[in-house]
Amino acid sequence: MTRFALTLEFDGTPFVGLQRQATGPSVQQAVEDAAHAVTGEAVTMHAAGRTDTGVHALAMRAHVDIEKAIEPFRLMEALNAHLRPDPIAVIACAAVPDDWHARFSCIGRAYEYRIANRRAPLTLERNRAWQVARPLDADAMHTAAQALVGRHDFTTFRSVQCQAASPVKTLDRLDVRREGEHVIVEAAARSFLHHQVRSMVGCLALVGMGRWNIGGVAKALAARDRQALGLNAPPHGLYFVKAEYPGEA
Amino acid sequence: MTRFALTLEFDGTPFVGLQRQATGPSVQQAVEDAAHAVTGEAVTMHAAGRTDTGVHALAMRAHVDIEKAIEPFRLMEALNAHLRPDPIAVIACAAVPDDWHARFSCIGRAYEYRIANRRAPLTLERNRAWQVARPLDADAMHTAAQALVGRHDFTTFRSVQCQAASPVKTLDRLDVRREGEHVIVEAAARSFLHHQVRSMVGCLALVGMGRWNIGGVAKALAARDRQALGLNAPPHGLYFVKAEYPGEA
Repeated sequence: MTRFALTLEFDGTPFVGLQRQATGPSVQQAVEDAAHAVTGEAVTMHAAGRTDTGVHALAMRAHVDIEKAIEPFRLMEALNAHLRPDPIAVIACAAVPDDWHARFSCIGRAYEYRIANRRAPLTLERNRAWQVARPLDADAMHTAAQALVGRHDFTTFRSVQCQAASPVKTLDRLDVRREGEHVIVEAAARSFLHHQVRSMVGCLALVGMGRWNIGGVAKALAARDRQALGLNAPPHGLYFVKAEYPGEA
Repeated sequence: MTRFALTLEFDGTPFVGLQRQATGPSVQQAVEDAAHAVTGEAVTMHAAGRTDTGVHALAMRAHVDIEKAIEPFRLMEALNAHLRPDPIAVIACAAVPDDWHARFSCIGRAYEYRIANRRAPLTLERNRAWQVARPLDADAMHTAAQALVGRHDFTTFRSVQCQAASPVKTLDRLDVRREGEHVIVEAAARSFLHHQVRSMVGCLALVGMGRWNIGGVAKALAARDRQALGLNAPPHGLYFVKAEYPGEA
């Protein structure tokens, strides 16, 4: 048996999410089916994160255990051939030690959220960004975001379906910047609660629009109450961009 | 009657092209239908360029003549409302003099061609870039491209369906640069022949792969023969990015 670490890029639009569910096609099912087609084995994929329907990934990390003797490059090429026409690509593949686990070994996760701040409907970026018509003050959003950095009880920013044992998490970074008509939010932490990034972005957008003042975000955090959430940003602006592991640069 | 200049952004994937055709949905038909829905008038749209099926636009310029009294901003909003769910957006709209013509007044056109230079199939960029697996030498492509800049007979780089009176055109700029895994080609001229940009990009890609030497592009140009064309790049990597008019900055 060899354990292979996979780096996955995918368009989350047609999937119920990363994780296998009875309700529709998932990224996990597509990769497991492709691995079965390549090896004839019943393969289970484990991933660093569990993204929702519509959420994208530029570099999700995952692993699979394969009995068949196969080189990493050959496995990657064969998986990509079988993944067509699903919008999932294996962009890197490496053999790793048996105790390397995509989820449990992961020590850092990073997301990016893309807002298209314009009046016109999206065309080429449809399902790739959240269109916000009202002008956003990205500097005010960045200032407000700093209240969330650090170790906090994030109950306000947690989905009611969240399965984490504790609402206390340490947010390492939450940066907001403008790039032309886009406002980009970058978030990094060891781990996140369900809907945490989207909930934080929704509240920051309220600040950006001037509907909340800068202190509103800190107040929502202090409330430790989902009812204090101003807005949950839609999934299609969210990208999983990085997972970190010990010993990786 | 007021003439309105429109700036259009569109995803060319679902259209037979910009120009109205009996064979399927076009950008022209969608905009004319939207204008009819807004005004009740039979409106004809004229555009700066005629893009093929699959070719995108970030800022195509066009004009329509409208009898109904309407402010440019209101017209833009109403057109966008009626264009849904087509992936076409009016991103700017202004009243212009009656002798301003989107096609005949245009004194410069610019295209961008995006190549995703990677082995893995495209996911988020599917239909948005040309995937080329073999490593490309962008510097060699840029050097080769300079042989095409200037006034030349571009017969080699012209579709057999091209309706232009003469194959002689002046190419103002053809720049190739690498941006991470992408290779970007920028082309600017007063006007282009049908398939000219895609034909030039196809030959430059052959140089980038090492299948043609740098002099191969100049040789193909000198042949003035469509048979000398090495490769026509696919439409879905091509973006119409700019049209210039006298008096605009």
